[in-house]
Amino acid sequence: MSSAQSEQKMDFEVADFPSGPLDVYRKKASFNWKDMLYFLEGEEIVAFKKYISKTLEDDPLFAHQPGQDIPLEKMRELTFLRVKQLFRYDFLTKEEMMANPLKMQTFNDFLGMYDWSLAARLFLNKEMFGSTIANLGSARHRKFVQSAEDMTIYGCLALTELSHGSNTRAMRTTATYDPSTQEFVINSPDFEAAKFWVGNMGKTATHAVVYAQLYTPDQVCHGLHSFVVPLRDPKTLLALPGVLVGDMGKKLGQNGLDNGFALFHNVRIPRENLLNRTGDVTPDGRYVTPFKDPNRRFGVSLGALSGGRVYITRVSLANLRLALVIAIRFSATRRQFGPKDTEEIPVLEYQLQQWRLIPYLAAAYALQNFTKSIFMNYVEFQMGLMMKDNSDRQAEMGREIHAIGCSSKPLGSWTAQRGIQECREACGGHGYLAMNRLGDLRNDNDPNCTYEGDNNVLLQQTSNYLLSWLHANRCDGERIESPLHTVDFLNDFHKIMESKFTATTMEEVMDSAVPLAAYKWLVCFLLEESQKRLAEQSASGKGEFEAHNNSQVYHCRSLAMAYIELNCLQRFHELTTDQDTPAGLRLVLSRLCALYGLWSLSNHMTTLYQGGYLSGRMPTDLVQTAILTLCSLLKDDAVALVDVLAPSDFILNSPIGYADGQLYKNLWSTVMQGSQVLERPSWWKEFSSDKPGVGSLRPKL
Amino acid sequence: MSSAQSEQKMDFEVADFPSGPLDVYRKKASFNWKDMLYFLEGEEIVAFKKYISKTLEDDPLFAHQPGQDIPLEKMRELTFLRVKQLFRYDFLTKEEMMANPLKMQTFNDFLGMYDWSLAARLFLNKEMFGSTIANLGSARHRKFVQSAEDMTIYGCLALTELSHGSNTRAMRTTATYDPSTQEFVINSPDFEAAKFWVGNMGKTATHAVVYAQLYTPDQVCHGLHSFVVPLRDPKTLLALPGVLVGDMGKKLGQNGLDNGFALFHNVRIPRENLLNRTGDVTPDGRYVTPFKDPNRRFGVSLGALSGGRVYITRVSLANLRLALVIAIRFSATRRQFGPKDTEEIPVLEYQLQQWRLIPYLAAAYALQNFTKSIFMNYVEFQMGLMMKDNSDRQAEMGREIHAIGCSSKPLGSWTAQRGIQECREACGGHGYLAMNRLGDLRNDNDPNCTYEGDNNVLLQQTSNYLLSWLHANRCDGERIESPLHTVDFLNDFHKIMESKFTATTMEEVMDSAVPLAAYKWLVCFLLEESQKRLAEQSASGKGEFEAHNNSQVYHCRSLAMAYIELNCLQRFHELTTDQDTPAGLRLVLSRLCALYGLWSLSNHMTTLYQGGYLSGRMPTDLVQTAILTLCSLLKDDAVALVDVLAPSDFILNSPIGYADGQLYKNLWSTVMQGSQVLERPSWWKEFSSDKPGVGSLRPKL
Repeated sequence: MSSAQSEQKMDFEVADFPSGPLDVYRKKASFNWKDMLYFLEGEEIVAFKKYISKTLEDDPLFAHQPGQDIPLEKMRELTFLRVKQLFRYDFLTKEEMMANPLKMQTFNDFLGMYDWSLAARLFLNKEMFGSTIANLGSARHRKFVQSAEDMTIYGCLALTELSHGSNTRAMRTTATYDPSTQEFVINSPDFEAAKFWVGNMGKTATHAVVYAQLYTPDQVCHGLHSFVVPLRDPKTLLALPGVLVGDMGKKLGQNGLDNGFALFHNVRIPRENLLNRTGDVTPDGRYVTPFKDPNRRFGVSLGALSGGRVYITRVSLANLRLALVIAIRFSATRRQFGPKDTEEIPVLEYQLQQWRLIPYLAAAYALQNFTKSIFMNYVEFQMGLMMKDNSDRQAEMGREIHAIGCSSKPLGSWTAQRGIQECREACGGHGYLAMNRLGDLRNDNDPNCTYEGDNNVLLQQTSNYLLSWLHANRCDGERIESPLHTVDFLNDFHKIMESKFTATTMEEVMDSAVPLAAYKWLVCFLLEESQKRLAEQSASGKGEFEAHNNSQVYHCRSLAMAYIELNCLQRFHELTTDQDTPAGLRLVLSRLCALYGLWSLSNHMTTLYQGGYLSGRMPTDLVQTAILTLCSLLKDDAVALVDVLAPSDFILNSPIGYADGQLYKNLWSTVMQGSQVLERPSWWKEFSSDKPGVGSLRPKL
Repeated sequence: MSSAQSEQKMDFEVADFPSGPLDVYRKKASFNWKDMLYFLEGEEIVAFKKYISKTLEDDPLFAHQPGQDIPLEKMRELTFLRVKQLFRYDFLTKEEMMANPLKMQTFNDFLGMYDWSLAARLFLNKEMFGSTIANLGSARHRKFVQSAEDMTIYGCLALTELSHGSNTRAMRTTATYDPSTQEFVINSPDFEAAKFWVGNMGKTATHAVVYAQLYTPDQVCHGLHSFVVPLRDPKTLLALPGVLVGDMGKKLGQNGLDNGFALFHNVRIPRENLLNRTGDVTPDGRYVTPFKDPNRRFGVSLGALSGGRVYITRVSLANLRLALVIAIRFSATRRQFGPKDTEEIPVLEYQLQQWRLIPYLAAAYALQNFTKSIFMNYVEFQMGLMMKDNSDRQAEMGREIHAIGCSSKPLGSWTAQRGIQECREACGGHGYLAMNRLGDLRNDNDPNCTYEGDNNVLLQQTSNYLLSWLHANRCDGERIESPLHTVDFLNDFHKIMESKFTATTMEEVMDSAVPLAAYKWLVCFLLEESQKRLAEQSASGKGEFEAHNNSQVYHCRSLAMAYIELNCLQRFHELTTDQDTPAGLRLVLSRLCALYGLWSLSNHMTTLYQGGYLSGRMPTDLVQTAILTLCSLLKDDAVALVDVLAPSDFILNSPIGYADGQLYKNLWSTVMQGSQVLERPSWWKEFSSDKPGVGSLRPKL
């Protein structure tokens, strides 16, 4: 398609924003925001987004209530009704997903931007329940998948227990085979082994994939396996005998999702309900498995869960995007103080406000590119799994994707957590009003830091991966080369370790190559230091467990974060230098990339000084001045940059962040539409008629 | 009192904790927690705390509902009823407060730990409304104060408007004097000038102190003044004619407090309702004021608000304390992984968990001492005000207290914000359950960062104060000496600037004198740099406004934070070295002080390298190793240290943090006591009978 055709199509498809107070910034932008949108997303995705957004907006079931205060039970009901409606819309069929996997990411982005509880309730049934069965089961389990797909049944995935989360192997629920009836008997030894935190389990799920320790009649434990266990009668939603299942109650966020618990007392399920990909029990009670090594079996079984981390990185980004749209449009329209008393300037004009927000905007662009890129890596890996690719490359890619996912989730969720908090504070009091949504974003984003593996615990997987490469290289002379090439630079370890920060001008420092080089040094340095620290600990007689634990802070943990930040920066840097990146966008993308790199790097300056990569005052002066200069250069682009990231006002659902920039009008009218806003309280007589006697309840002396 | 007597008294007054899983840590503690409690609080306060706590616990009106999901309207009613009950209890009379001002701090701590909305509703009526009238009004206004004290009327303080917060001078509400009726006519020029965010205004307040621009009949504006304006009829709680007053709706937290808005349309109030301390209007319409300089007048008028910042610092600490009690007791009882598969260890044993939590515990102790200390400074200053002390010292103390309050609020509220977030994440999933309260703590703490002045804006007041001293010293040769001596060390500026980090052993670094010395250098360096930066900006032709704005990031802002951290560390250091500090507590307090100092300092390492105070790798190695060593040395004391900070379980209200350490039992039983936990949902038929046709709403192609 020629450029002219493309422009025509754009104008046709994406509407201009309504004219208003944001015009002044939109006109100052250095690039065309629609070009950026099409470049980053592609036409098909842009059209798909518009279609989802419009469909939801046109359906009264999805209408927002301004400043809503919906009771828990009602929120769960409403979310369920919306999920049901999504079955009817069937926005994305399997075939469409296969044809363009990015559509799945877009669909999740959009549904989640509307409401994460809704996305979760759909995802947990279809993906976590359905796909787990498809991956870990066999032909005999297909009926469960189909029933979940047409809502005959509703599924959930029950792994964690009240007293165990991170330590998955230590789950205590048991499944004991009884050959006399050819059934498994599911038991929770006590309430501390109750399945806990299971999404969809609280009120809705009729079936669960339950992880339990498999016992054969000879009382041998074969480790954790998964079983399809009916919980409630689909006809009545009443709990089945032996199942104590319930709702955990209110959470910090995502309250449309019913997290629940279950205790099992001699619950009998057919032998066939064991998901038998990794091991099976014969009718007479013998355990059979294609895996000789139980660790490997366990790995495959949990491997089915690991795609979630790549997904959560993207989920976090979606939250950060929304918060930035709100905070930057607010900052461009909120005026406070000015050079003269008579004329106030937008708060976005303040250096401090720029420094608080614009680096997060750069991070959002970096993560936008990164999450798309690692998602495509993951799709490639999944294709290999589906094709039963048993090559070394496939296995290596699995390890690498695992290392990426275990650190991209921390990077994404923490960046979002901090960014949303900064946005909330940057909007002052108005950011504290529930209707402006920054609270919900923070609350809904929060579990991304802890579920699917606590961030701090997960980072150990990534550092272990890097250390294992170092070991293979040094001890076995192996060349370092991974399928996605994220570690290949380690072959230049010695050369990199000898490098120093050499930039001396602002122009040099404002090129993302500078932080990129620094990050390579940083990863090498931290890898070496972590390895040394581990060796010291072992040499001092510490066992492996203790040595490992004592090497996390300032070492392995920092290493994993530096690796993933480098990875994210590297891919963004490649995008900005790619020949296919339109010339008109390259300047702003380069600035964003340099800012992201320098700003992230500024958290590691101490280590850079410690290891001698930096010395003297010039590097810090340069980096700080470059950050402030880039913020200042980007502030006129900031509104256009969030216009690219923004969903429709309907999805955004935050009066202070609407596209027309009519901050006060939108806020005021939403306040006035609230329930009983102007009414006197129902309890007015408690004030008017029944005055308290001051001190009447004070003890008499 | 002899030590034997003191012990006897303690045993009598403060009960031991119930035996349970926390025993193991309590027995390992290096100090007696009751000694610490009495040392930090004193007997009278300990007894007072117990009395408040028991009174509330015994009153069914104050009972908690586990995992409560209370609608907004109900929450506001319940909070109002509790406020009313507090009038009856009258826990602290004015006389008692004068006799021991720390009782007021304790009372606020405790009420707030129970529920900040409750504390706010009481405080806003009595202090913000009552005291403002007392401070800014005269004898003719005494009736309003008295009526607020016995709840004949209910008050609020209305300063901020929809479109103005930080820029207080720019408020647009007008009060125009009409000599024909001897009334002021209050008007909001448009909805953007609606009073907004006013606590108590939403549903309850009958009267407001309204800040408005005073116009005399000659159409001269005399600037912002405050007026008592009736809003609602106390007999009916219906809005008075011309007053559009209402409720802003749901906030991120503190939803028991009814924040509101008001628009005034020609509301007439008697001339006498002008609070006339800073200026008055004669019956015939002439403006008279004892202040010649309108800036000075404005300063006094807003000065009445500044005590709030010292108070908010303490409020933030109370939130941090609660979060730490929860997270540390949780970490001491939650077991996950271990050296062997069969034996799991408490997560508090992990270096990473220690490093995440224990520095915040040290910060809480530092802030506990600091907030008490600056509160007593503030009390001294207030006494001076009451005594009409017009000395230079009193005026200087006002400036110094202002500089402290403007930076102690940022220090306290941000430390709490980050600490609560870390605690929430450190408790994993269970920290995400509403009943465990970490979400409420975060949400209720949040406004501390933005109200009574946005933190970032306030910090400018502190840096201006420091820069003005530098200016006076260098340009006028004035010796630097302030009433509270927080800046006196600047006289040694040149000597300090020549100092370097010289410690070479762990033993040295683990003494708080090391971070203290580094902080002194840091403040001097940042002061010099800020001054240079401002001079450069001015030299390059920037106006004062712009020069000032462009010198915040990495300069003035960092300066203000370094100053207040130094201040906090200095006072803690003095406590640990004070002869009166009991010998048995000195070791643990010294460790906390060193940890707080080093951990805070570690945020400034880049600057220390930049300015040449540090060089090479040894300082960083030492500081990091010292931090980890101190965390490790303090982990066995951590439970006892939070026992000192903890209120009763009733006030704490978090099952995973109760004093008996029965983490799972308490959590499970609270979950099971929730409403409709085991019931099927009311909307069960929506699942069972009405199945969605998959794709039935998909557009047909």
